[in-house]
Amino acid sequence: MIIIGLDPGLGCTGWGVIRAEGNRLSHIANGQVRTDPKAELPERLVKLDAALGQLIAEYRPDAGAVEEVFVNENPQSTLKLGQARGVVLLAAAKSGMSVGEYAPTLVKKAVVGTGGADKAQVHAMIARLLPGAKIAGADAADALAVAITHAHHLASARALRGAA
Amino acid sequence: MIIIGLDPGLGCTGWGVIRAEGNRLSHIANGQVRTDPKAELPERLVKLDAALGQLIAEYRPDAGAVEEVFVNENPQSTLKLGQARGVVLLAAAKSGMSVGEYAPTLVKKAVVGTGGADKAQVHAMIARLLPGAKIAGADAADALAVAITHAHHLASARALRGAA
Repeated sequence: MIIIGLDPGLGCTGWGVIRAEGNRLSHIANGQVRTDPKAELPERLVKLDAALGQLIAEYRPDAGAVEEVFVNENPQSTLKLGQARGVVLLAAAKSGMSVGEYAPTLVKKAVVGTGGADKAQVHAMIARLLPGAKIAGADAADALAVAITHAHHLASARALRGAA
Repeated sequence: MIIIGLDPGLGCTGWGVIRAEGNRLSHIANGQVRTDPKAELPERLVKLDAALGQLIAEYRPDAGAVEEVFVNENPQSTLKLGQARGVVLLAAAKSGMSVGEYAPTLVKKAVVGTGGADKAQVHAMIARLLPGAKIAGADAADALAVAITHAHHLASARALRGAA
C-alpha cells in the first residue's frame, strides 16, 4: 500500500510518499511545494493544487494523511494556513483516496514515542525508519512522519480486526 | 460581462451570478451550496468544490469576486472558514478567471454607501439594484453584494483608464 503524507502550508507544503507492507515501511519520495509569497493568493492556491495533483497522478497513493495544524498563532496566520490546508485536503480527497488527519503531538508520539519530541528527534527517527531517504527539508520530514503515523494506524486497525 | 460573487463558508457558501454591461447590472442566478456537518471535512470540501465547478461550467463567468472573512472569532472557526475559503478561491481561479477579494465593510460601502450597513439594508439594496432577483438566503445575498462590488470596481477602473 502506498501512503502520501502532507504537511500543509501556504508558503511551503511538505509531502512524503512511503510504501507500507504489513509492518515494513520503505521510502518512495519526498519533497516540498513552494508558492511565491509575492503572487496573489488565488494564484498560489492554484499552483499548490496543480503540484499536488501531479504528485498524486505520479505516485498513485492508496491513502493520504494530512497533519492537523496549530491555531494558537495570530488569526491572519490561521486563516492563511486554513486556506492552504483546504486545498491540500481537497487535492487528496478528490482523487478518491481516504484521508486521515493527525494532530502534531500524535504524529510525534507515533514516530518517536513521545508527543513532546523536538524536530531533530523526529528527523532522526525518520532516517532510521526509512533508511536511505534523502529528506528535502523540515516540512518534508513532517509529511513523512504523518505518512508513517497513518501506516501505523492502519496496521493497528488491521490487527484489531484480526483479533476480533 | 458575467461576474460570480462568492461568500465562502464550510456549512453554507453563497453564490450569485450577475451580468454587468457598462453601468447596468442584471441578475442571472443565485443560491447556496450546503455541506453536511456530519460528513468528514475532506468529503465536505470535495462536495463544495464539485458544486462550484458545476456552477462555473454552467454560467461561465468572466470574473469572480470572493468575500474576505472576519477572523476575530475563535481560532477553530477561523481555520474551518479558511479551509472552505481556500477551496472557493481555488474553484474560481483554476477556471482561469481573475478573482477579486473584498472586505465585508468595502462590500457594504459599495452596495449601500456605508460600511456599517446591516444585513437588511444590504438585502433591500440588492433587491433594488437587481430587480426580480429571488434571493436564496443571507449568504446568497452577500454573494450578490460582492459580485456588485466587483462590477463597480471594474467600471471605476475602466473610467479611470478612460480619463487617463
